[in-house]
Amino acid sequence: MKNIKVIGLDADDTLWVNEPIFTVTHERFREIIGKYVGAENLDEKLYGYEIRNLKIFGYGIKGFILSMIETAIELSGGKISGAEVQQIINLGKVMLDHPVELLPGVEETLQLLQPDYTLMLLTKGDLFDQESKIARSGLAEYFDHVEILSEKDEATYQRVLKRNNIAVDEFLMVGNSLKSDILPICNLGARAIYIPFHTTWIHEVVTVDASANLAYHELPDISLLPAYLQQQSV
Amino acid sequence: MKNIKVIGLDADDTLWVNEPIFTVTHERFREIIGKYVGAENLDEKLYGYEIRNLKIFGYGIKGFILSMIETAIELSGGKISGAEVQQIINLGKVMLDHPVELLPGVEETLQLLQPDYTLMLLTKGDLFDQESKIARSGLAEYFDHVEILSEKDEATYQRVLKRNNIAVDEFLMVGNSLKSDILPICNLGARAIYIPFHTTWIHEVVTVDASANLAYHELPDISLLPAYLQQQSV
Repeated sequence: MKNIKVIGLDADDTLWVNEPIFTVTHERFREIIGKYVGAENLDEKLYGYEIRNLKIFGYGIKGFILSMIETAIELSGGKISGAEVQQIINLGKVMLDHPVELLPGVEETLQLLQPDYTLMLLTKGDLFDQESKIARSGLAEYFDHVEILSEKDEATYQRVLKRNNIAVDEFLMVGNSLKSDILPICNLGARAIYIPFHTTWIHEVVTVDASANLAYHELPDISLLPAYLQQQSV
Repeated sequence: MKNIKVIGLDADDTLWVNEPIFTVTHERFREIIGKYVGAENLDEKLYGYEIRNLKIFGYGIKGFILSMIETAIELSGGKISGAEVQQIINLGKVMLDHPVELLPGVEETLQLLQPDYTLMLLTKGDLFDQESKIARSGLAEYFDHVEILSEKDEATYQRVLKRNNIAVDEFLMVGNSLKSDILPICNLGARAIYIPFHTTWIHEVVTVDASANLAYHELPDISLLPAYLQQQSV
């Protein structure tokens, strides 16, 4: 791609596995409160608490733990026991302490990109949790900048570009969320590469109007990124 | 003070009231679990959970809510009810939504300093909560940079200075915590002004060895800062 100098990379489900950890936790949560409630509206209730609590707690696992507890209290009619609440908190602690599992080809790709581009890690969520994951990932050395953001929308990206003196036409964003990594970037007139992950949190799912003709490209695998950039820059 | 170009200011209990909100919450928490437990070892137990959970949750109100819940479960022998757990969560939500109450003289001081210094807000804690407080404080416009840090130690301050191209002898840090705002700065060879607040979280309390002869100055009130800086720079 011509003129690209800075590549921003999303982290969760772009560099390492994230959403499947939530999926496993959903299953364990279902087991804990299974005696109080049928499975039918559990996911819907939990998602309702998550969305309402986003405005108070922001993104991240600590807010998710609190949403699980509130869901359990409501769906059990207040009968959830102290021991079961502790089990829910422990599920969250296991998530926070989960080993960081890199996606295939990530480290090799960063090695190939590092000499030619300024690499920025741009991730959304809880500061403490994300810093811990970056440290545990072993990938920190590849990044010139790391920015942990409370939201990934046009205004936030604009501030990040401005703060780091990056021109819109020099910037490329790479990530697995159309909503957070791709659409706001396209709306700013910058370029983006969408690398889908097999599971997406429903909050991040958007329907893209095919007629919008947005200037992003889709790659099936991050390993294809260096070759794609080289081919496009010729 | 000579050569100072950049002033870093702490936020909680330096610019606005924070610790008293925790104190009020402690009292409400005591009321909620009062039927299960005597008052004697409640604070100690809660502090024990807070400290152990700092490594998993980091600083901030969401982690504090979870520590209150764990304390309540343990001290009630698991008898705490769902409704009471919900009350504890609601205490936390009230804290997160608490109006930001500026300390006396803060806004006038920032107005006086802004023309002559680059002002940085350097605060520790939860990204989402701190961003929300900064926005609600109405003070964002006075700051050239805002950095929300997961820890305030020498290594973190060093990274902040490096990232923003600030020389150690051009930097002054102002805050209410000897542990987080003053000692690491003095250890880096930069200057600091300590403005005590009447309440300090026990985790932030340190004993300063008088013989250490650290190069910080104490002011009783932030309003005295502009005059002090002017007088010292003559």
